[in-house]
Amino acid sequence: MQVSIACTEHNLKSRNGEDRLISKQNTTTPNVVNAARAKFRTVAIIARSLGTFTPQHHISLKESTAKQTGMKYRNLGKSGLRVSCLGLGTWVTFGGQISDEVAEQLMTIAYESGVNLFDTAEVYAAGKAEVILGNILKKKGWRRSSLVITTKLYWGGKAETERGLSRKHIIEGLKASLQRLQLEYVDVVFANRPDNNTPMEEIVRAMTHVINQGMAMYWGTSRWSAMEIMEAYSVARQFNMIPPVCEQAEYHLFQREKVEVQLPELYHKIGVGAMTWSPLACGIISGKYGNGVPESSRAALKCYQWLKEKIISEEGRKQQVKLKDLSPIAVRLGCTLPQLAVAWCLRNEGVSSVLLGSSNPEQLIENLGAIQASPSKNDIPYCK
Amino acid sequence: MQVSIACTEHNLKSRNGEDRLISKQNTTTPNVVNAARAKFRTVAIIARSLGTFTPQHHISLKESTAKQTGMKYRNLGKSGLRVSCLGLGTWVTFGGQISDEVAEQLMTIAYESGVNLFDTAEVYAAGKAEVILGNILKKKGWRRSSLVITTKLYWGGKAETERGLSRKHIIEGLKASLQRLQLEYVDVVFANRPDNNTPMEEIVRAMTHVINQGMAMYWGTSRWSAMEIMEAYSVARQFNMIPPVCEQAEYHLFQREKVEVQLPELYHKIGVGAMTWSPLACGIISGKYGNGVPESSRAALKCYQWLKEKIISEEGRKQQVKLKDLSPIAVRLGCTLPQLAVAWCLRNEGVSSVLLGSSNPEQLIENLGAIQASPSKNDIPYCK
Amino acid sequence: MQVSIACTEHNLKSRNGEDRLISKQNTTTPNVVNAARAKFRTVAIIARSLGTFTPQHHISLKESTAKQTGMKYRNLGKSGLRVSCLGLGTWVTFGGQISDEVAEQLMTIAYESGVNLFDTAEVYAAGKAEVILGNILKKKGWRRSSLVITTKLYWGGKAETERGLSRKHIIEGLKASLQRLQLEYVDVVFANRPDNNTPMEEIVRAMTHVINQGMAMYWGTSRWSAMEIMEAYSVARQFNMIPPVCEQAEYHLFQREKVEVQLPELYHKIGVGAMTWSPLACGIISGKYGNGVPESSRAALKCYQWLKEKIISEEGRKQQVKLKDLSPIAVRLGCTLPQLAVAWCLRNEGVSSVLLGSSNPEQLIENLGAIQASPSKNDIPYCK
Amino acid sequence: MQVSIACTEHNLKSRNGEDRLISKQNTTTPNVVNAARAKFRTVAIIARSLGTFTPQHHISLKESTAKQTGMKYRNLGKSGLRVSCLGLGTWVTFGGQISDEVAEQLMTIAYESGVNLFDTAEVYAAGKAEVILGNILKKKGWRRSSLVITTKLYWGGKAETERGLSRKHIIEGLKASLQRLQLEYVDVVFANRPDNNTPMEEIVRAMTHVINQGMAMYWGTSRWSAMEIMEAYSVARQFNMIPPVCEQAEYHLFQREKVEVQLPELYHKIGVGAMTWSPLACGIISGKYGNGVPESSRAALKCYQWLKEKIISEEGRKQQVKLKDLSPIAVRLGCTLPQLAVAWCLRNEGVSSVLLGSSNPEQLIENLGAIQASPSKNDIPYCK
Repeated sequence: MQVSIACTEHNLKSRNGEDRLISKQNTTTPNVVNAARAKFRTVAIIARSLGTFTPQHHISLKESTAKQTGMKYRNLGKSGLRVSCLGLGTWVTFGGQISDEVAEQLMTIAYESGVNLFDTAEVYAAGKAEVILGNILKKKGWRRSSLVITTKLYWGGKAETERGLSRKHIIEGLKASLQRLQLEYVDVVFANRPDNNTPMEEIVRAMTHVINQGMAMYWGTSRWSAMEIMEAYSVARQFNMIPPVCEQAEYHLFQREKVEVQLPELYHKIGVGAMTWSPLACGIISGKYGNGVPESSRAALKCYQWLKEKIISEEGRKQQVKLKDLSPIAVRLGCTLPQLAVAWCLRNEGVSSVLLGSSNPEQLIENLGAIQASPSKNDIPYCK
Repeated sequence: MQVSIACTEHNLKSRNGEDRLISKQNTTTPNVVNAARAKFRTVAIIARSLGTFTPQHHISLKESTAKQTGMKYRNLGKSGLRVSCLGLGTWVTFGGQISDEVAEQLMTIAYESGVNLFDTAEVYAAGKAEVILGNILKKKGWRRSSLVITTKLYWGGKAETERGLSRKHIIEGLKASLQRLQLEYVDVVFANRPDNNTPMEEIVRAMTHVINQGMAMYWGTSRWSAMEIMEAYSVARQFNMIPPVCEQAEYHLFQREKVEVQLPELYHKIGVGAMTWSPLACGIISGKYGNGVPESSRAALKCYQWLKEKIISEEGRKQQVKLKDLSPIAVRLGCTLPQLAVAWCLRNEGVSSVLLGSSNPEQLIENLGAIQASPSKNDIPYCK
Repeated sequence: MQVSIACTEHNLKSRNGEDRLISKQNTTTPNVVNAARAKFRTVAIIARSLGTFTPQHHISLKESTAKQTGMKYRNLGKSGLRVSCLGLGTWVTFGGQISDEVAEQLMTIAYESGVNLFDTAEVYAAGKAEVILGNILKKKGWRRSSLVITTKLYWGGKAETERGLSRKHIIEGLKASLQRLQLEYVDVVFANRPDNNTPMEEIVRAMTHVINQGMAMYWGTSRWSAMEIMEAYSVARQFNMIPPVCEQAEYHLFQREKVEVQLPELYHKIGVGAMTWSPLACGIISGKYGNGVPESSRAALKCYQWLKEKIISEEGRKQQVKLKDLSPIAVRLGCTLPQLAVAWCLRNEGVSSVLLGSSNPEQLIENLGAIQASPSKNDIPYCK
Repeated sequence: MQVSIACTEHNLKSRNGEDRLISKQNTTTPNVVNAARAKFRTVAIIARSLGTFTPQHHISLKESTAKQTGMKYRNLGKSGLRVSCLGLGTWVTFGGQISDEVAEQLMTIAYESGVNLFDTAEVYAAGKAEVILGNILKKKGWRRSSLVITTKLYWGGKAETERGLSRKHIIEGLKASLQRLQLEYVDVVFANRPDNNTPMEEIVRAMTHVINQGMAMYWGTSRWSAMEIMEAYSVARQFNMIPPVCEQAEYHLFQREKVEVQLPELYHKIGVGAMTWSPLACGIISGKYGNGVPESSRAALKCYQWLKEKIISEEGRKQQVKLKDLSPIAVRLGCTLPQLAVAWCLRNEGVSSVLLGSSNPEQLIENLGAIQASPSKNDIPYCK
């Protein structure tokens, strides 16, 4: 497969041997860029990535595929924990006014598609997401050892002591999460957002403590900078404590800098993998905002005003243009645009799992289809 | 605001760049100092402090204010634990013949004013203070995670093994405290007074043990010298154990040496903060002893004979003279003398919280008012 | 006792002072070797070993003999754990269609013969072996402290997360084993087969964790290379964790390389001992396959097709020839061929225990007889 | 007080600045020494010790006296644990055919005399001593925190795995002891006799484990050589584990070498103290064997044949001669010979406690009287 392209020199220049074609900086450039140029740029990324694609031994050696479902499994970072490369997030999924039946339906669809990773947080729906997840797990009776349940700590409570990453909040917060989840332990507990008011030693010591106490198997970070993760690793080594195994990060066509430039170095040096979220950029890559914001869409909701503004901004309109250029590629690959976007995330070495989030069973099924949609990995556009 | 003053050279001389205007040594000097001189001295302190005031980034960055109560919160030392900058001590508060109703009233006043820190000790009222505190906490049902409960170990029992800081007493003493408190853990357990008969390694190992066992979140010291705290820190580092986060120390206008000269170095170097007590110098700064010891006052009680003697000593009379000079400043700031004294303690970088103690609801409310009394920090006299 | 022999130079040459007479390489050499030559070789081993036999202080000092049963006990590696030098494996023993009565009979025979070591694994009979073992232990009521119960982790479950040596699987897998065994802890938990997808640090940390949690007393490896064991030891030393004490390895007349060449160095340097299995080479050394595969034998079963193929291969026929040469030696020593084979394994320094496996009470009794069959150690052929 | 003496040069010569007047070697010298010479020797020891007596700050600073009972308390080694300087051993005490009433009486006498230290072992009376001790403690309801309960591990069971100092036996043995004692933890668990078959790392790791698990507060050794204790300390330091605090050793007038020459160095360097037993040399120093072995005495019992033989040996007769020389000193000090012997043990720096053992209430009361018998420490003969 070859894509014929013309590319602007500016976007394709090599920096230190690494191509960062659509960097965050670029996407936020205030200059007006015309549609033709954007087209070139987007397709150029894809073409170039295909041109430079080389077999990635590490992942191909480790990745396995379930016979019945076709789901693929990878190690979470370089840890021994095996996660399905698609996971179910519960922020969007259980965040709205969802009935117990639909919630169970979504979980079941995911589980039966081979998803073993379910991610939540103490703050999702003010703790309700954990309660829903726990109830469904209990009802379904899936073997605990076949599941990877993860949660995140940071902004659980109203009191001054119920926030941040103090030892007190890490321990109390996780205990409260486990109660809501009706679980003895989670598989990974994430420290959501760094807390500059708490010494790194205290954070790592508390994370090591909850692991030693059997309340978690591993710990990870969420929305931390590479430098902060490196500091956590360094402190863990200094005091013989347990280092983090994973960073949760936003990753999609329009947000690539961190996962593609910063995290790979962490992955190679200290084994920290990426669990990424928002593969469709809050639904932008679904294509449904191509002609503005439909009334039935999420962005039309009052509490998603920020999303609507983002979509109708100049930046947002440029993104829509790019998406239109991608559609024919998806067609050629025999998949939908969202499936292409999800599969695209998985091409990145170091991305252990991509979290999907949807309160709509049809959408979830479509997104999960990203696995089947790409019979050969080499056909999925990838940038490196 | 400017205060015109004349100052004695002796008191204002700079030592190593740090001004220690009213040092403990000075207050206990046997020489007779006339009233006029004392007046100059006191006001000089205040003026100089105002003159040299510079923004303290560390604290201002970390300090937050609750909207409803106006209470301010700081980190306990450099740990991640957030404490209200006013706490409720239970030595005086629950020490006398207090009814359950009044005790509950005092706790409620404090809690509703935004106080999250309640400090007790295994010896206060021979353990009864812990029982009262535990009963009220249980009755009120405040969320455990919103509270910071601290206790102190040292002289809990009658037997030879029930004192000091042996591993045996630290573990058994804390277990007994937790039973009286009806709690699973305290937030900070303090080692009250150093114990030269027990090796520092044993003390730090036992403190680390109770933290690892989930009986406490942090540990601190009480009435330890800076050198002893440094030794504890050093031993913790040597054996990869958990260092202390806080020293409880007496701190008020007439007792400043330790908190102002010794502890700041510890705060900057090893993150140990100060939780101070007796901001009114056992009531001396309340002003009620200006004309001797009234019959209804604490100092008139038999068991407070030592306090009465202190007040009516030459030293005590000099203190009263100084207090009279402070009163107009309090008036100008729109607060009472006790409020000024409490607010004055909080100006010290490294003071995480000031423990108030009163068995009188009105007094407690007045003291808690120190927070509201100072709309601008810069208006509170501070010595550095 | 002297055995007159002629030996081929090729087989008896000394390498770095260590004789490796029948190395794995040799036994798998594709060249055709005639029967006479094989005869010489086999007897040469025995003779040479007798010739160079020197008292082995380490073992003789540590080995003790029970008065009533004659069973001998050794330390497991250089650990303090005392194991009977014959143990009962449960793969073959409980692997087939065994009735509860026979299972109990086999356990009782072993226990009353002085066997204190019972080995199982989460996968034997899909967990059923552990259930049977647990039920019998419960019924018999033998003192837990008199028993050494070991199990192995690796391929316990169907899900992706239920295999390998991730922290998750080590902890969950061992918990599940303990439940099936109805035990609070096993004495040794083995990591069966190395897992290259999990970092060694994670494996050793998890093994140390289950020991610290009281779920196991020691940990060992199974089917690991000497280099992998050395890495585990090195990682344990690096992070002050607990090193393994034992490797489970196949060891019999036709599989000697690992136990005789690689493991002794580990034993001397890091104290890792050997617990060996298959002393009769899956029954080959029993002599029953001397004239092909009888219909009633294990190798005649469908699921043991691989064994049958091995026996009737050229390699297999050569082995049968060698066995015929050993028979007269067994006769002279007053024991059977299987007893000679078992006793032969025990002559190796560093072999702490030889696991027997049989679902046939008579066979088990015969094999256990290896202890009594050799009144003097010096009479047992041994190669070093 | 002055004692006029003549001394043999041989016995009083100074070696490396330390006098070892009655060394074990000397007492076991086969040469016949006449009575007069023995007399000189014994008195010489006492005189010299009085002559060179210098205030021992370490002990005097730490030793405290209970007002009601006069009992003295010392730190166990340099640990923070406070033990009565007289403890009750339970080997002799509960070893014979003792009724529950007498056992309780003995315990009560000791406790009411200020004894807080009760020592037992898993083997005393085959575990029965622990059961008796546990039952009495339960019945009496003395506060656990006021007591120091110690036990010893080594030869608890019949099976091969129930002996020695393997991790398995240390954990299982201590658990079994705690069950018999009906206690959650002991204060000190002793490793009785070294176990050369178990690596020191395993022993120290297991002792650290039981302390971290809350089954013991401290650990010690019993009948170990100074070199073995030093190795334990060294291994503890190497792996950041908990070092031992105490060695249990035989110590009396005729067995001095270890406690006086070897242990003081350990005490000064690594803080290991001595808990000594047999202060009356199995009753020999009681004086009752002055005219042979009376029929009612312990040495007349069948199972104490070894003691009888010791007493009537030439060595034993020489000891009796020495004792006769000591009697007038006891008279002058206003105490009995046994009281002098017990008080004599306590003069040694580093002896934290002397264990008394008697199944006879009168004897126990007499021995406990050693505390009151010596109003001034300086009057007790002491050798250094």
